Amino acid sequence: MSRRTFHLNAFLMGVGHHEAAWRHPRTEARRVLDVAHFQELGRIAERGKLDSVFFADGLAVGPQIKRNTLAVFEPVTLLSAIATATERIGLIATASTTYNEPFNLARIFASLDHLSGGRAGWNIVTSGNEQEAFNFGYDAIPEHARRYERAQEFVDVAIQLWDSWESDAIVLDEQTGVFADPDRVHTIDYAGERFRVRGPLNSPRSPQGRPLLVQAGSSESGKDFAARHAEAVFTAQRTLEEGQRFYRDLKSRLPKYGRSADELKVLPGLVPFIADTAEEARALEQEFTDLISPDYALRQLSGLLGVDLTAHALDAPLPPLPEESEIEGGKSRFTLVKELAEHEQLTVRQLIGKLGGGRGHRTFAGTPEQIADELQTWFENDAADGFNIMPPYLPGGLTDFVDRVVPILQERGLFRTEYTATTLRGHYGLEPVESQFAQGVTRATA
Amino acid sequence: MSRRTFHLNAFLMGVGHHEAAWRHPRTEARRVLDVAHFQELGRIAERGKLDSVFFADGLAVGPQIKRNTLAVFEPVTLLSAIATATERIGLIATASTTYNEPFNLARIFASLDHLSGGRAGWNIVTSGNEQEAFNFGYDAIPEHARRYERAQEFVDVAIQLWDSWESDAIVLDEQTGVFADPDRVHTIDYAGERFRVRGPLNSPRSPQGRPLLVQAGSSESGKDFAARHAEAVFTAQRTLEEGQRFYRDLKSRLPKYGRSADELKVLPGLVPFIADTAEEARALEQEFTDLISPDYALRQLSGLLGVDLTAHALDAPLPPLPEESEIEGGKSRFTLVKELAEHEQLTVRQLIGKLGGGRGHRTFAGTPEQIADELQTWFENDAADGFNIMPPYLPGGLTDFVDRVVPILQERGLFRTEYTATTLRGHYGLEPVESQFAQGVTRATA
Repeated sequence: MSRRTFHLNAFLMGVGHHEAAWRHPRTEARRVLDVAHFQELGRIAERGKLDSVFFADGLAVGPQIKRNTLAVFEPVTLLSAIATATERIGLIATASTTYNEPFNLARIFASLDHLSGGRAGWNIVTSGNEQEAFNFGYDAIPEHARRYERAQEFVDVAIQLWDSWESDAIVLDEQTGVFADPDRVHTIDYAGERFRVRGPLNSPRSPQGRPLLVQAGSSESGKDFAARHAEAVFTAQRTLEEGQRFYRDLKSRLPKYGRSADELKVLPGLVPFIADTAEEARALEQEFTDLISPDYALRQLSGLLGVDLTAHALDAPLPPLPEESEIEGGKSRFTLVKELAEHEQLTVRQLIGKLGGGRGHRTFAGTPEQIADELQTWFENDAADGFNIMPPYLPGGLTDFVDRVVPILQERGLFRTEYTATTLRGHYGLEPVESQFAQGVTRATA
Repeated sequence: MSRRTFHLNAFLMGVGHHEAAWRHPRTEARRVLDVAHFQELGRIAERGKLDSVFFADGLAVGPQIKRNTLAVFEPVTLLSAIATATERIGLIATASTTYNEPFNLARIFASLDHLSGGRAGWNIVTSGNEQEAFNFGYDAIPEHARRYERAQEFVDVAIQLWDSWESDAIVLDEQTGVFADPDRVHTIDYAGERFRVRGPLNSPRSPQGRPLLVQAGSSESGKDFAARHAEAVFTAQRTLEEGQRFYRDLKSRLPKYGRSADELKVLPGLVPFIADTAEEARALEQEFTDLISPDYALRQLSGLLGVDLTAHALDAPLPPLPEESEIEGGKSRFTLVKELAEHEQLTVRQLIGKLGGGRGHRTFAGTPEQIADELQTWFENDAADGFNIMPPYLPGGLTDFVDRVVPILQERGLFRTEYTATTLRGHYGLEPVESQFAQGVTRATA
């Protein structure tokens, strides 16, 4: 058995990741509007001793209006509500560096970390969708390179703000009337190209010091960004070989930033269809595929690729696509879909079917044993430090994973049987972080 | 008895509004860090059938570091956590129009409204503190007039975003696969001087349609802004006559915006010290006054006035102060403090004592009967539609108000004995709002 630890994140979305999940009899569509549904999902994940739950986010409606559920809740507020209904599960929210101010974002993640007792995580995104740009005064997506430059500076500012209160700054001496020690609370006086922020943050150091930093972009800029900052990476990898290549690539970038391999956990996505037999699992997947609406799927595919396919014939192959370098939106997802279509010579209809479950993430239909085998294989062959589990329907798909797959992973000694830490950083086996302003600690950022 | 309805908001702050509350034996200072403390306060307020709880906010630490508690939690995330621990109480969060983007703010308030079942309120502030400006790239506070112009546009955008989904847009037809009706979801295509926002919002219409809009600035711009947008106004008024003048002034501005007097509720602040006898109540207040730290109070007063008094003699009168027109920060609080000092010919030390409880709000020490009498007098003499109760210490000061003052108000037929509505707007006796984009409804904003 490997000495590496095995991690599981539940990526939650409405009543399931499959785009047609809300139409399937195993779900209740109206629950996308119900916070109790999401609190229940948090508790199910916690019952399975998972590391964390995670919500993606985008700052525009996208093509979902007619055919698909949308995110009703903003992730940080939703996770604040889940925090108080759970005790241990980590809580990872997506938030954009392109359309926020670092002070505000540092603040709300500090708040989530305080109110959850140290369970906050931030999935850092740069917002590559054109529709988002239109909601923030732009006529087009800000350039990919510019977005990543802003993200770098943004994260530097946020980390300094989180560090601006040393952990022992709160004194609470009722006799002398000293609430906090001003010598342990620091202005940051950040003056960069894009941001000028004096600080300190208006919230004392939170239990984790800072949220777990998560990243999911797999472009060259994305991987470098992850190597510098991320502690967990969500990624879409369709085969073991691709997974191994990505894993090696990402880990090999860490030494450049003075980091070791175990400081960043790689978590490929998996959409599991679980049933008693492989045949039943495949039949279950087919039920969902049959519910896909082609017109919706075409619009979604158009959004993924940044190419309008809504008038394209379903049974023809994809039209010629631009090179990744010409794309200003999400580069890595573009390339993944393009390669999948070209490699497997798929028609648009076939491609839509392949993408329906997980928008490019790997779908696997099988028995609990077969799914556990897959996860073990990827983990033991250096393609993953754990998995981003994307239940195709909810809550049932999560319940089945927690109650049927997790026990097998536990029996095999791969996965924890009890929580051994109270914080999200602790679940991921990461060391606590000190404030860069604490005495004796040199500043970590340039 | 008046046919007007009587309203009560609990303005919550750390372990109490009095600046020295955390040092008093009736509080436990460490609870400022504990979300359970705030959830308990929400439940106490709900037990008293109060309309709402409210959290102020600022985007900088201010002068609190050494001597006073600070806001550990960001209000919207905190209220999300309180929402799931309560069922009826309204939840009002402060957020700034100067340092946010309208799309983001519209989104998080929609999220809070969804997850609370229609209990969200937004206290709209323009952020008049210089320290806040430094955290957002400014060298000085943006001008008072510019801040209000931005706020006007900001609120117009936010309202259009909340209206962008009609209430019946969610269809959920599993057979035809129609999740929402695109004809009932609208782009807003807002193009103003400061904002360009396409919309729609990425969240369906929330239970209230939009949060209750609250405002607390009492400058000329502030009052006009309130008359146009606010449904509840928090205000600092020290005497019945001042309260009546403000009340008349504000209500008289409503017709200009096509609004009637009952569409805006005026809630003056009150810091109640409650005890069995008037003498005991005054002694209790004195205990808190004795804990005030003069150096902290001088810094806080300097911040309130925008004038550095930290080297000023405590037993001298205030130095000559500028005119309100020269002030770029909070104008009305400046004038209130200036007039108080000049009118009562106070030394700095005396002024600090007067301000310690409620930073300019009225402090009243008395028996439950006396406090109820005061509230009734203000209510029945057109100085208030209700009150913003600011317990000097928490939770005790709120518990005493709820368990000892509220029952008297109820016996007198002034205050509800049970909730009659499920939403915050309902508690305040306001009509539900329709989307301006709904069929047959003409657009409300220009």
